[in-house]
Amino acid sequence: MKILVINTGSSSIKYELFDMAGPKVMASGMAEKIGEEESLIIHKRILSNGESTERREAVVIADHHEGMSRIVALLVDTEYGAVRDKNEIVAVGHRVVHGGEAFHSTTIIDEEVIAAIKKNIPLAPLHNPPNLVGIEVARSVFPNALQVAVFDTAFHQTIPKRAFLYAIPFELYEKERVRRYGFHGTSHAYVAARAAEYLCSPLGELNLITIHLGNGASMAAIKNGKCVDTTMGMTPLAGLVMGTRSGDVDPALPFFLADHLGMTPRETDALLNKESGLKGICGTNDMREVIEKMDAGDDRAKIALDLYAYRIKKYIGAYFAALEILDAVVFTAGIGENSPYIRELCSRGLDRLGIEIDLERNKLTGSGISEISSPDSQVKILVIPTNEELKIAQETKKAIANFLK
Amino acid sequence: MKILVINTGSSSIKYELFDMAGPKVMASGMAEKIGEEESLIIHKRILSNGESTERREAVVIADHHEGMSRIVALLVDTEYGAVRDKNEIVAVGHRVVHGGEAFHSTTIIDEEVIAAIKKNIPLAPLHNPPNLVGIEVARSVFPNALQVAVFDTAFHQTIPKRAFLYAIPFELYEKERVRRYGFHGTSHAYVAARAAEYLCSPLGELNLITIHLGNGASMAAIKNGKCVDTTMGMTPLAGLVMGTRSGDVDPALPFFLADHLGMTPRETDALLNKESGLKGICGTNDMREVIEKMDAGDDRAKIALDLYAYRIKKYIGAYFAALEILDAVVFTAGIGENSPYIRELCSRGLDRLGIEIDLERNKLTGSGISEISSPDSQVKILVIPTNEELKIAQETKKAIANFLK
Repeated sequence: MKILVINTGSSSIKYELFDMAGPKVMASGMAEKIGEEESLIIHKRILSNGESTERREAVVIADHHEGMSRIVALLVDTEYGAVRDKNEIVAVGHRVVHGGEAFHSTTIIDEEVIAAIKKNIPLAPLHNPPNLVGIEVARSVFPNALQVAVFDTAFHQTIPKRAFLYAIPFELYEKERVRRYGFHGTSHAYVAARAAEYLCSPLGELNLITIHLGNGASMAAIKNGKCVDTTMGMTPLAGLVMGTRSGDVDPALPFFLADHLGMTPRETDALLNKESGLKGICGTNDMREVIEKMDAGDDRAKIALDLYAYRIKKYIGAYFAALEILDAVVFTAGIGENSPYIRELCSRGLDRLGIEIDLERNKLTGSGISEISSPDSQVKILVIPTNEELKIAQETKKAIANFLK
Repeated sequence: MKILVINTGSSSIKYELFDMAGPKVMASGMAEKIGEEESLIIHKRILSNGESTERREAVVIADHHEGMSRIVALLVDTEYGAVRDKNEIVAVGHRVVHGGEAFHSTTIIDEEVIAAIKKNIPLAPLHNPPNLVGIEVARSVFPNALQVAVFDTAFHQTIPKRAFLYAIPFELYEKERVRRYGFHGTSHAYVAARAAEYLCSPLGELNLITIHLGNGASMAAIKNGKCVDTTMGMTPLAGLVMGTRSGDVDPALPFFLADHLGMTPRETDALLNKESGLKGICGTNDMREVIEKMDAGDDRAKIALDLYAYRIKKYIGAYFAALEILDAVVFTAGIGENSPYIRELCSRGLDRLGIEIDLERNKLTGSGISEISSPDSQVKILVIPTNEELKIAQETKKAIANFLK
């Protein structure tokens, strides 16, 4: 069974083609700068022996429909292709950022689902519209495939009221649906399931804190396999310090900036989303560069890293208290998987909470799952590579199976 | 030695006269609705045998100067007064809300200090101006007394950068002094000192989490006697759920309200400060009423209480992680001292963190310090009545002693 996973942004389409027998990736790539003067497609064909060939096409791609057609042409290309006929692809799994309260799980896309995704545009004005374009284009290019939506927010829909409501007028929840939704759900769900496999324990009996540290960053508190809290909120701005996003700040900050610097809500929005985080403090949002700067003696870089890690450390404590019992802490995504320094800074000094990092193990992680807690640690600390595309493919396969039952 | 403590608001002056031999309160009261059509002074004279007499004067008080003159008249009144001559009062201790980064401790007021308090007006536009009026009036009414400023923010000035900086452009800290300041410092400092006495341990060797739950509410993480983090931020809006204040929300909320409801920063400011918190969720900001409503089956009241307590519970975990070692959790102020229900809801289920509440002891607190943890709890849980006025008097006395040295 071949499933195509696509993630459509405002000017890009990322894709990955899976053969679910394995599962293994047959091809992957990205069309970018769609609608701009010069667009680019980078396509990679991965052979079953692991070898890969790459093709780059610098062409003008007028719109997403043309982009998807070009991707299909590459997928069936005799030299770079992975399938003979596009109809071998039985389903397309779409990453959809905001499912609001309508979607608690992966869903076969029909008109009603599209209407519901549209209804959530106010909650994700930058993400849901291109996701919808991706769905529309995929439907027209793959008329015989099932279209499936996998929501970033779905995994967090088990969060209880005490954690998802804000302490603001209740009507704002009832009428405007202002509440915590959370994001990165696919990643949190994926590494939680992998942790259960690794720990040889049913996920439904595990309490976990999962820490996704990529360009965006969030944490989830998972009780008996279900999400009960997460650091991102109504939007992906809340919670942890990120590359360019502030995470938590005093809610009165926008009022202060309005009063004293004459900044509009829109300007403050841009400031907190694009000019803050690591970048705001030390000038760069690339974690490797920040660490290099710190190593070279840059004070601001050190401060940025201290803030970054301290915020995570506090949430580890907060979620331990929320979960009451904790089996494992899981680090994932770019920084979580690749920065022993950050992992150490977040986890050090938590012995009294039964969380003991082994500094040697922390430095020796491989490409699979690594256990970096000390042998005596009551709580395991794991590093688990995330794979959102694979999770979307798996979710898509499961949704089809349910649909065809 | 007699010290007058005053706390001046925009239309009120609260006062308490201490005889520092004891120390004991000789008189206390409040002038309110100053500048309105009908003002009110409630004055209480407390005799050394504990008996008290009260006097209420419903009069027109044009301004703070007149208010202070009337208070002095009552303090020296032959029937209701506590001193024969106002010159017996050697010092006036002023509560000043925002000391910014200028003040790390209590300070004798001179022109430079007044200038520095003025400089901090942008950070506390509602509080510092009336505090300054209070200082000015007290200087003119008590020309022979030393004037002393005790800052709400001073105790938090030991918070390190990783906890006081926000992850926003660094220039906003350097130029606009945007950072976490924290408030309720006098109360946190007072109960921390009382906890040290109770635990028979030097404060400098204790790690504490102090939880001040009044109309405003905040928590402090105290390491070796020094504050290292607190829940309020640049303003008193951040952190815990309060009577009418939201505490933490997604920082993007103001942008959503601007885009979708056309709300200005000022309107959102008012919404989050005055219409949120317990009141926003269930219609009342009085904790006793909220609990009564819940007992009568009101769902919203139950939700409000769950949110309120869950936020505190998470911060207990967060601050335990920040402190790494924790000796005691201290509840104080109106709700912290008087609501066993809230204390239970915040503390239950923290056994794995070594924090075990004793539900029976929790119900049997008296007027002094109560220990409500189970005998086996690694971390003590204490209920300690706060006394900000006494702390201000003590700080004032200490500042004078240093000054006169």
